[in-house]
Amino acid sequence: MNINGISYRAIWPEQDGSSVNIIDQTRLPHDFSVIQLTDLSSAAQAISTMQVRGAPLIGATAAFGVALAMQENASDFGLKAACDVLLATRPTAVNLRWALERMQSVLSAASDIDRVKIAWQEAKLIADEDVEINRSIGVNGLPIIRALWEKKRNPVNILTHCNAGWLATVDWGTALAPIYAAHDAGIPVHVWVDETRPRNQGASLTAWELQQHGVQHTLIVDNVGGHLMQHGQVDMVIVGTDRTTAQGDVCNKIGTYLKALAANDNNVPFYVALPAPTIDWRIQNGVTEIPIEQRDGAEVSHISGLDATGKVVVVNIAPVDCQVANYAFDVTPARLVTGLITERGVCAASKDGLLGLYPEQMA
Amino acid sequence: MNINGISYRAIWPEQDGSSVNIIDQTRLPHDFSVIQLTDLSSAAQAISTMQVRGAPLIGATAAFGVALAMQENASDFGLKAACDVLLATRPTAVNLRWALERMQSVLSAASDIDRVKIAWQEAKLIADEDVEINRSIGVNGLPIIRALWEKKRNPVNILTHCNAGWLATVDWGTALAPIYAAHDAGIPVHVWVDETRPRNQGASLTAWELQQHGVQHTLIVDNVGGHLMQHGQVDMVIVGTDRTTAQGDVCNKIGTYLKALAANDNNVPFYVALPAPTIDWRIQNGVTEIPIEQRDGAEVSHISGLDATGKVVVVNIAPVDCQVANYAFDVTPARLVTGLITERGVCAASKDGLLGLYPEQMA
Repeated sequence: MNINGISYRAIWPEQDGSSVNIIDQTRLPHDFSVIQLTDLSSAAQAISTMQVRGAPLIGATAAFGVALAMQENASDFGLKAACDVLLATRPTAVNLRWALERMQSVLSAASDIDRVKIAWQEAKLIADEDVEINRSIGVNGLPIIRALWEKKRNPVNILTHCNAGWLATVDWGTALAPIYAAHDAGIPVHVWVDETRPRNQGASLTAWELQQHGVQHTLIVDNVGGHLMQHGQVDMVIVGTDRTTAQGDVCNKIGTYLKALAANDNNVPFYVALPAPTIDWRIQNGVTEIPIEQRDGAEVSHISGLDATGKVVVVNIAPVDCQVANYAFDVTPARLVTGLITERGVCAASKDGLLGLYPEQMA
Repeated sequence: MNINGISYRAIWPEQDGSSVNIIDQTRLPHDFSVIQLTDLSSAAQAISTMQVRGAPLIGATAAFGVALAMQENASDFGLKAACDVLLATRPTAVNLRWALERMQSVLSAASDIDRVKIAWQEAKLIADEDVEINRSIGVNGLPIIRALWEKKRNPVNILTHCNAGWLATVDWGTALAPIYAAHDAGIPVHVWVDETRPRNQGASLTAWELQQHGVQHTLIVDNVGGHLMQHGQVDMVIVGTDRTTAQGDVCNKIGTYLKALAANDNNVPFYVALPAPTIDWRIQNGVTEIPIEQRDGAEVSHISGLDATGKVVVVNIAPVDCQVANYAFDVTPARLVTGLITERGVCAASKDGLLGLYPEQMA
């Protein structure tokens, strides 16, 4: 997608062929800064400090991290050590493990001498495949937006929560892919961007990437969506997901469930966009089976922003010594989901719907 | 209620008998600062700059403002001018107009020479009446909490949104009055405090006043409530209201509707606490009949907090030039409200329920 008129991916190999570039997402929206990763430790640090985040982008970064590590030590020991270091950066991210296992599998079969070249090829392939998956999600979601546009003949208002945009992937994003596809197809869209407390990925990342790509949008606090839906100002909701159960329950950023309830109460279609790897075929009931991560309370009590002198500072917005709880995700039951938009097509949020698209998962 | 072990009201006359004290709420939670209002202009400024806020407290402050004005000029002209100045501070607050009309009516009937004394008497009466109304809301809400405690025999978890505590009134508060009553009666309560974006009255005021009074509480972002309810961690919700329709629809701080939906979806009782003056008997359907105020987008894009040096600073948390919408209230339909807790008792959120408590309103 575009930044200031120039097309970017969220991660891309440098022309020298031996390093990789990322956008430092901890500095957005106030500072656009590209960081060059030249070795294993800088790649590991980029993931652990959340300079890159979003499950697909973490996976791609880890793959490139292995390629960088092969330049330093392409032995079996070097390969295992690199994967161990990278896996430890965000131990819960499912795409991280998946990308590392894939790199390890391909490289184990190769001789030390070929490993640098093969690692770069495979990492680029992982990145390209991610782009293609997300592009397909966009293609498959586009008809839903087009139908709203043809019925309404006024800009289509789409609400989204958190950041499931191209910054969370290599390009296109998941929830935002259909929106970019519609925008690029000339359909007028306007996005209501939930700021998404506590980490404010909506305000910091989604609003920023939509602004850079030229998609109309309005930032709102997370409390507003229900009111907008009551007043016909939301035509559809699209969100991403961190984990989807076999029956179609959706685990996503905390607060998603509240928007799904409001959509249901106001007959607003509620879609979830996802690539197949986020489906957890082993579990059914998301509310009872998915453990919800609790994070540092400082994410709630403290916030960073630009002060009057143009410096990014962290401020405390809660009473000193206030007890804080910080739940990172919630589960939206399948009954509240209108449809799942995947790289293979759109289906109902149900066991039958998912198995229709992924018949190879039938027992 | 207590601050650091000392009992306070949110507004109180100074012992000298010619000035009145308030707590500067714009400096909370980081700085507890009492301001002495000595004349009309300081009272007007306290309301317009939101050093005091909350409809009942605004009304009481305006009444004391008239008393201060009478010390400067007790003529008919002085009285009218004072009321005009005070009314212009927050033109939409219903209690402001009510308190000024009451002061004007009492004082117009008196001679200039008696007006200072009468104005002080009437302002103190308005403040005392507000305390009594809120105390009664607490008494009437207490049995609901007691019943939960007797059934559960574990601390009662109550979720609240925004600040409808004693800082929004002269004392006790509306939504928090039953909670203080329960706490003072020895019932163990724990309050989930929604931070309440964008103005963060939950984090800045509710968490602070509960902390000062010694009521157990945990600060959460507004996105969390649904997740907590799905997991049985909320026994009841109590919120305040800015306007309640004759059929029981409730207009309150933006985001209240989302919590009501979640409570309904999880069979959690959802109560609204209110004094009679917030009932608007002329209207029925809150969603279609109550206009929703839109406020400055800077309340969303900017936030104030304590920096590392201990100074309160304002920071920008959105992309520069980001379009922002800021809706202040939403409407919760009566069908989602378990009951209304008033100074006369608890009733169903319906026309019949309200008229049962306020039969004088029957046409």
